[in-house]
Amino acid sequence: MPYTAPIDCYRLILDHVVGFHKVAATQRFSEATPDTVSAILTEAGRLCEEVLAPLQRVGDTEGAKLEGGILRTPTGYAEGYRAIAEGGWVSLPADPEYGGMGLPMTLATAVNEMMSAACLSLQLAPLMSQGQIEALENHASDEIKALYLPRLTSGEWTGTMNLTEPQAGSDVGALTTKAEPNGDGSYAITGQKIYISWGDNDFSENVCHLVLARLPDAAPGTKGISLFIVPKYIPESDGTPGRANELRVVSLEEKMGQHGSPTCVMSYEGATGWLIGTEHGGMKAMFTMMNNARLGVGGQGIGAAEGALQHALAFAQDRVQGKSPTGTIFGHPDVKRMLAQMKAEVFAARSIAMACAVAIDMQHATGHEDWAARAAFLTPIAKSFGTETGMRVADTGIQVHGGMGFVEETGAAQFFRDVRVTAIYEGTNGIQAIDLAGRKLMDGGEAAFRLIDEMQADAESARATHPDLAEPLWQATETLREATEWMVAQDMGARLPGASAYLHGFARVLGGQAHLRAAMADPEGAPARLAAVYMTRLLPEHASALAEAREGGDAVSAITAEDLAA
Amino acid sequence: MPYTAPIDCYRLILDHVVGFHKVAATQRFSEATPDTVSAILTEAGRLCEEVLAPLQRVGDTEGAKLEGGILRTPTGYAEGYRAIAEGGWVSLPADPEYGGMGLPMTLATAVNEMMSAACLSLQLAPLMSQGQIEALENHASDEIKALYLPRLTSGEWTGTMNLTEPQAGSDVGALTTKAEPNGDGSYAITGQKIYISWGDNDFSENVCHLVLARLPDAAPGTKGISLFIVPKYIPESDGTPGRANELRVVSLEEKMGQHGSPTCVMSYEGATGWLIGTEHGGMKAMFTMMNNARLGVGGQGIGAAEGALQHALAFAQDRVQGKSPTGTIFGHPDVKRMLAQMKAEVFAARSIAMACAVAIDMQHATGHEDWAARAAFLTPIAKSFGTETGMRVADTGIQVHGGMGFVEETGAAQFFRDVRVTAIYEGTNGIQAIDLAGRKLMDGGEAAFRLIDEMQADAESARATHPDLAEPLWQATETLREATEWMVAQDMGARLPGASAYLHGFARVLGGQAHLRAAMADPEGAPARLAAVYMTRLLPEHASALAEAREGGDAVSAITAEDLAA
Repeated sequence: MPYTAPIDCYRLILDHVVGFHKVAATQRFSEATPDTVSAILTEAGRLCEEVLAPLQRVGDTEGAKLEGGILRTPTGYAEGYRAIAEGGWVSLPADPEYGGMGLPMTLATAVNEMMSAACLSLQLAPLMSQGQIEALENHASDEIKALYLPRLTSGEWTGTMNLTEPQAGSDVGALTTKAEPNGDGSYAITGQKIYISWGDNDFSENVCHLVLARLPDAAPGTKGISLFIVPKYIPESDGTPGRANELRVVSLEEKMGQHGSPTCVMSYEGATGWLIGTEHGGMKAMFTMMNNARLGVGGQGIGAAEGALQHALAFAQDRVQGKSPTGTIFGHPDVKRMLAQMKAEVFAARSIAMACAVAIDMQHATGHEDWAARAAFLTPIAKSFGTETGMRVADTGIQVHGGMGFVEETGAAQFFRDVRVTAIYEGTNGIQAIDLAGRKLMDGGEAAFRLIDEMQADAESARATHPDLAEPLWQATETLREATEWMVAQDMGARLPGASAYLHGFARVLGGQAHLRAAMADPEGAPARLAAVYMTRLLPEHASALAEAREGGDAVSAITAEDLAA
Repeated sequence: MPYTAPIDCYRLILDHVVGFHKVAATQRFSEATPDTVSAILTEAGRLCEEVLAPLQRVGDTEGAKLEGGILRTPTGYAEGYRAIAEGGWVSLPADPEYGGMGLPMTLATAVNEMMSAACLSLQLAPLMSQGQIEALENHASDEIKALYLPRLTSGEWTGTMNLTEPQAGSDVGALTTKAEPNGDGSYAITGQKIYISWGDNDFSENVCHLVLARLPDAAPGTKGISLFIVPKYIPESDGTPGRANELRVVSLEEKMGQHGSPTCVMSYEGATGWLIGTEHGGMKAMFTMMNNARLGVGGQGIGAAEGALQHALAFAQDRVQGKSPTGTIFGHPDVKRMLAQMKAEVFAARSIAMACAVAIDMQHATGHEDWAARAAFLTPIAKSFGTETGMRVADTGIQVHGGMGFVEETGAAQFFRDVRVTAIYEGTNGIQAIDLAGRKLMDGGEAAFRLIDEMQADAESARATHPDLAEPLWQATETLREATEWMVAQDMGARLPGASAYLHGFARVLGGQAHLRAAMADPEGAPARLAAVYMTRLLPEHASALAEAREGGDAVSAITAEDLAA
């Protein structure tokens, strides 16, 4: 499916919205010069346009298959994956000591988003590897690092995350997979894991599973969970994949979308694994991986939204129907409104994800706790709002297509089907909201208020020159401040029923700030026109969301199961 | 998939929300006694629970197929269809002169909704027949009526609507199918039609197509369109299906959902047809059919929402995960919130559809133009809001299921995929909004203000006893009144970009009225608790929608195609 990398948009966001110059000014990321940034975006964009985008439809129609225990990926996926690996796109932010580029997460976020716009189901494979690389960098022994990281970084090997079990989904602490010491420093892993994205493939030399399991003396719940690396083929000391491990793909899930990506039921039958991090310290190590993946999944939503937007725009400019000023349906006010909103939505969500990535980079580069707090605060927003944006924009994309939107042949439906899972995996959007309204407000709202202060300062300084944009934003920040003050004053029972609405309202206002900054950088151009669309048609939603956020739990608590029965 | 007919909910709405007693008090519908209503809902409910619900999954997995020109429906669909026909459920509102029950559209709306909750793709077949019956009753000659209506009414024959051509979708006036007089009172129909729902089947003796086409002397555009009935088999004078007509199913669309319902490309190659209504009067006759179908499609959305709600509730009450007061995920505040909102949404949309049906019945029974205006005003709202509710509730249903929501096996995804087309067919929801904000406000807002007056009177009279419910509703009606006053004062250029938001805002407030009425009927029961959820968590959305409605077209008009390009 044709795709054009939105490079000018990334440049606008880097230069005028998220302050990437701060990242480039640090010692750690001093190599992220304007030329390097430009080269990276251009090269990755070309890969997405030329190699990955043509795989989107074939992945959907062929799907991944398990044939006699052998996993077969769709035609072209192996070549597509190798092109990703050879371009170095698995390991943009990875440690140079093991072959990575050591570049900022901000750039990786842009590149990941482009790859997911071009072919979401294939992009999930390197995204999983990236999370594994970060987990090993932070928690593995030097020996494990030396053995695994160079191959994961080069993309010769791929990585997966194995958390979920049939009885243990969002409640990870309920898992029962066992890890028993073999006496030689390794462990025998036994249990079944489900929903393992890219649990196997036919294009990497080895597949390395990070598996959560319990040691014999483990406490119940999350405190008794440890993390293990369990490779498909046990590496020789020189890194050659050796004998097959005692693990296998039992079956693939039949899913609504992402047919190209195998979602595996995995069985570990005394498989050999090695401890990552400390005994019973598995959750901490896993969270490293999950936070990375959460931002990545937010980017998947945004990528799908960009793909759906481009697809719908091309259709609207081509489809002749009814009397309109342009001769095509693009000229119909309601169609143009839909497309303009899609574009304004994508810009808002992309800016939030990039702002989150900048905070992560600044945290890594400076070690400053304010940046760490900002990264932690923005991660659930980037994940939820990015994926919500993906679903909403892909839905509107179908509507722009009319009847053809429901027919698979046009491809509009695929964006809609593929993106749906992003609101579920790596922690459902409900879990993200609870994380935001619970854990991430435990600082008394400090990280939240710092963001709100910045938004208000932006609105203040734009008031004279851009009153139409600055005034609604300023009003919205006031409402957001009040909602945040209300939230931090409540106990969890009152906060949590409004958590999703609070997250959505916060994102809506952040999106307004991004649009205002872009408009100020180009007051006569497209960014200012899109900002006007956002402020008039999308920002207003914050008010009902934040009103809902402050409702507390009384109305919902009063509901009984019988009230909901037919 | 298990389904329980929500009969108590229909009773509540009939008795306390939409004033069905007015319908039952008319001469025309004097047979709609409480006992009859009860028997109808119970019998139809049983059919849906026992016969239709088990067909939902098989329809999706097998799908309809075209094999060597022969259409094959999924296993059990033929028996399911016959059970619908034998129960008389095709012809509940049809003229008793031709074998119909002559019962109110309000009851048909409830029964249609139950059937679509149980098996949406099969229910579409009788829904198409119902529209055809109504069109023939109103526009066909006595001869055609005598020949066709008894067989359509009994369900021995089925009906379809043939509007769309590849270049003529929402712009029906662009169609080119030709109709040439044969000299014997019949016409030769030649052309290709697409998106023909249930264009063929293997369970009815005949399939009768209502086809829009142009006579040789026809003016361009919609003024030159005539309507013809074109049967698959040309009936003998005694009604026996005779020789095959010159028409065929060329192919079936591969769709995102509703796999059980064949969506046909039809080719007419000099097929014999007969004029319905006057020459060049096809649009008027077609609108009879479409208005009926629009309310019916709104009901499909509500049915899908009910099905998705029941499915998600059952899952949540069964799924053990994490620590919760109930032991299941039902006890998690965010899950309960989702389920309560789903239920409150379904109730609101169902009440609006039933109110629309009551207006249609009163129009038919009394001929009073106020009822006609109300029916006309509520039809696009019932269609759009019913289908939006279907999509939103099915989406939330997936989210309640977590990872299992994305896996086809659980069935949650099917509701989401199946219902998506309801926002597109029978006039996209954008077309409905334009109809509402354009044509349906041409009375200067009279029909709208009459509804608003009633809502305000309800809010006033509940203020003393139910201030928590009445006050927010009263405020909302004020906002709606202002938005309506603004709308009627604008030209179309300013109205139309906000049309979808206006429709949505109007529906949100109407939903509040329905919940208030239900709560007042049962102040200590489930309806009052659900009303509290609606007023606090869903009604507030009206404010942002109605603000957006009043934004006018400036921001969107300023956007160029280049602004939206990557």
